[in-house]
Amino acid sequence: MNNRNLELIADFYEFTMANGYFIKNMNDIAYFDVFFRNIPDNGGFAIFAGLEQIIEFIKNMHFSEDDILYLKNQNIFSNDFLNYLRNFKFTGDIWSVPEGTVVFPNEPLITVRAPIIEAQILETILLLIINHQSLIATKTRRIVNQAKKCPVMEFGARRAHGADAAIYGARAAIIGGAVGTSCTLSAKEFNVSASGTMAHSWIQSFESEYEAFKAYAEIYPKNCTFLIDTYNTLESGLPNAIRVFDEILKPQNIRPIAVRLDSGDLAYLSKEVRKRLDNAGYPDCKICVTNSLDEKLITSLFEQDAKVDLFGVGENLITSKSNPVFGGVYKLVALEKNGTIIPKIKISENVSKITNPSFKKLYRLYSKDTNKAIADLIALSDEKISEDEYTLFDPISTWKKKKITNYYIKNLQEKIFENGKLVYNSPDVKSIAEYSKNDLDSFWEEIKRIDNPPKYFVDLSEKLYDLKQEMLRK
Amino acid sequence: MNNRNLELIADFYEFTMANGYFIKNMNDIAYFDVFFRNIPDNGGFAIFAGLEQIIEFIKNMHFSEDDILYLKNQNIFSNDFLNYLRNFKFTGDIWSVPEGTVVFPNEPLITVRAPIIEAQILETILLLIINHQSLIATKTRRIVNQAKKCPVMEFGARRAHGADAAIYGARAAIIGGAVGTSCTLSAKEFNVSASGTMAHSWIQSFESEYEAFKAYAEIYPKNCTFLIDTYNTLESGLPNAIRVFDEILKPQNIRPIAVRLDSGDLAYLSKEVRKRLDNAGYPDCKICVTNSLDEKLITSLFEQDAKVDLFGVGENLITSKSNPVFGGVYKLVALEKNGTIIPKIKISENVSKITNPSFKKLYRLYSKDTNKAIADLIALSDEKISEDEYTLFDPISTWKKKKITNYYIKNLQEKIFENGKLVYNSPDVKSIAEYSKNDLDSFWEEIKRIDNPPKYFVDLSEKLYDLKQEMLRK
Repeated sequence: MNNRNLELIADFYEFTMANGYFIKNMNDIAYFDVFFRNIPDNGGFAIFAGLEQIIEFIKNMHFSEDDILYLKNQNIFSNDFLNYLRNFKFTGDIWSVPEGTVVFPNEPLITVRAPIIEAQILETILLLIINHQSLIATKTRRIVNQAKKCPVMEFGARRAHGADAAIYGARAAIIGGAVGTSCTLSAKEFNVSASGTMAHSWIQSFESEYEAFKAYAEIYPKNCTFLIDTYNTLESGLPNAIRVFDEILKPQNIRPIAVRLDSGDLAYLSKEVRKRLDNAGYPDCKICVTNSLDEKLITSLFEQDAKVDLFGVGENLITSKSNPVFGGVYKLVALEKNGTIIPKIKISENVSKITNPSFKKLYRLYSKDTNKAIADLIALSDEKISEDEYTLFDPISTWKKKKITNYYIKNLQEKIFENGKLVYNSPDVKSIAEYSKNDLDSFWEEIKRIDNPPKYFVDLSEKLYDLKQEMLRK
Repeated sequence: MNNRNLELIADFYEFTMANGYFIKNMNDIAYFDVFFRNIPDNGGFAIFAGLEQIIEFIKNMHFSEDDILYLKNQNIFSNDFLNYLRNFKFTGDIWSVPEGTVVFPNEPLITVRAPIIEAQILETILLLIINHQSLIATKTRRIVNQAKKCPVMEFGARRAHGADAAIYGARAAIIGGAVGTSCTLSAKEFNVSASGTMAHSWIQSFESEYEAFKAYAEIYPKNCTFLIDTYNTLESGLPNAIRVFDEILKPQNIRPIAVRLDSGDLAYLSKEVRKRLDNAGYPDCKICVTNSLDEKLITSLFEQDAKVDLFGVGENLITSKSNPVFGGVYKLVALEKNGTIIPKIKISENVSKITNPSFKKLYRLYSKDTNKAIADLIALSDEKISEDEYTLFDPISTWKKKKITNYYIKNLQEKIFENGKLVYNSPDVKSIAEYSKNDLDSFWEEIKRIDNPPKYFVDLSEKLYDLKQEMLRK
């Protein structure tokens, strides 16, 4: 899976800058933060995902002779720099929040501390992996939340943006709470459940719908989920399904799994199908619905009292159709010269685009009473946060202050690489999904609202705030 | 690049169905069409792309022992079927429109004729490649059209949905008219231009913006494009850029390439920057703008008389943000028994979702007077289309008829595989882009309109129409 040589996926300017740093002898230690500015779909939270693929990439990172030759042929890189790339190995430190963590805008999700050439070259790949998987994990969690207790299956491979989007999109969907994927390769790679029923082509390739169902039941008696909308759901599909349940499964004492609805008025059809299945003696036969679903359509189906047991969600999940960009960025926040950290800032006319300078830590404060998260806190790396009393204040509306006591603190970032050595074990995908679900449970329900959720508090420590103001004044 | 074993990317149901066909001895020849129903962004046309990657996939297609083992462990596949997969090789025929072709809803873009198991297993990968690349090629063409004579560069890798979305998204962007990509790997793989300037981190890593520009000019005197918005575009970035042009480039008689604007009011800034560059003696220094551009923002910039020479477009292009799904589908249209074609149809309550049955050909009729396309025509494969006179009629509003004369006919699909053998040479990406541009020029300007374009005529032959009606009556 990962034996592709993707080192050159970096934006070309990473190499021109790297060559420049090299020529100018500027390979000081630099600190870069990965963070994002807005939650997709104006939601209340995001789910961080993709770290394992970043780790795999960095661990195996090297430039092939073919890569070097390509760069050489551009006639702008120094030979010494090309030799440097030939022996390239990541030697720095990386901290990251674990995959599945609930995260918010402006938080340092990943911090890279490395000689600036190494750190610069990582930019594109880090962002593209994090932006993709966090997008899909976040979207899936929105959908799964709205589906309440009904399992959601990821069915989007055919509408994904290429093979990786299908494979790693399915991985992210599992992290976001999907119970399975239609993508066989993802199911295999990440050891999760492969789901699927039948396509219309199966039905069409037989003389009749009845014969198609019958053949399927003969081959897979224990896995009967029939797609019943090829010709007419209520007049043909459902009666044929029930007939086959009666004729093939009942004599063997096998219960059918489900019927699938893929078109028409799903609210109406599901209720009608439920009634008729119950009357036919199949109250345990589930109803699976598919057809361009998303969190809003699912909410609407429940509002209409639709009788649904399982959702298969495709294109709207795998592309996060309503908001297909997770805008993670990678910004220089400090340089280190002779052991001293020199904070750096990027100014912008748009206040929200001004970066938080320096090497930082990210904390989450929980109430000892409720175990619910109270606020997140971004502080300078060497600050000590009091465990007794803390005054939170809003970094934009600074008059909004709140003194809290009786809390405990969690450091959200973990060390991933130390001096280039991997010091972290990636959990398996199912464990990440479980962790993510629990992590979200530590927040108040309101932030899960799909429309107009409240804004969770992400505050700057007073020291960080003061540093930022001082740098802006200069 | 393509040495990944992606055969299992197929949806799991492709394998359960294939195993079913195998067990039921149903490996008759089947015909499947790839087509789409709606043009993204309600545009007037789409650009077909992705064929080369499909060809590569099919040519090299085989199941590894690891794949077989995974399927075996699901405990639902027959051993004979697994053996069949072990020796799998595509043996069928494939027709396709060439990449870059301007295409419209309901047209058979690809037709697969193969034993049904082979055809079925191809479904997911065919769709995911075509849906992705056609989406990005179409979106790029919209953007490029609105950019008029200004070159558009693809800058989206960091926001792409994983590595393939960056790599093949850049490929599709070139097909859609982008002049280059920031993604080094795509530039290398597809032999196109790698573009890029510098990131804010370059500026920040120096003591001052002036020193950052100066260092860059010393290293790359012939490639000076300065990013001028790190601190303050007009007060700091531009004066520093001009100072470095004067101090470093002028003495060497080298002209600067461009300055880049990445934030703020691009319309206002571009005009102000243009004026000041002209006054400083750099009327030939180009202005490149970036920052969440798309076809609408570009149109708006021109309406405001912005002074822009180059566009770099990122997330809105590489994800087709305003419409990130190209809804291509793969439908069974016929079976062949003992040499006879048996047409198949999929009914739906939604009339537009009813498929066009049987093995078909796709033609484009051009006026001999203007060389402009008049209409596309979907006909049965064995029909002879008159070259003298043809009566077009709308398949939905059948009273709308139009007799045409003085036209010529082009068969849009080409043969790609014949009995499993590749009989087609994929053109290089630049040639595809050139072909695509010319192909679009054979249509009236109005279909390029980004809002409310007219609907181009895609008609069914009378024979096909009659067959469809007859099948619906049954």
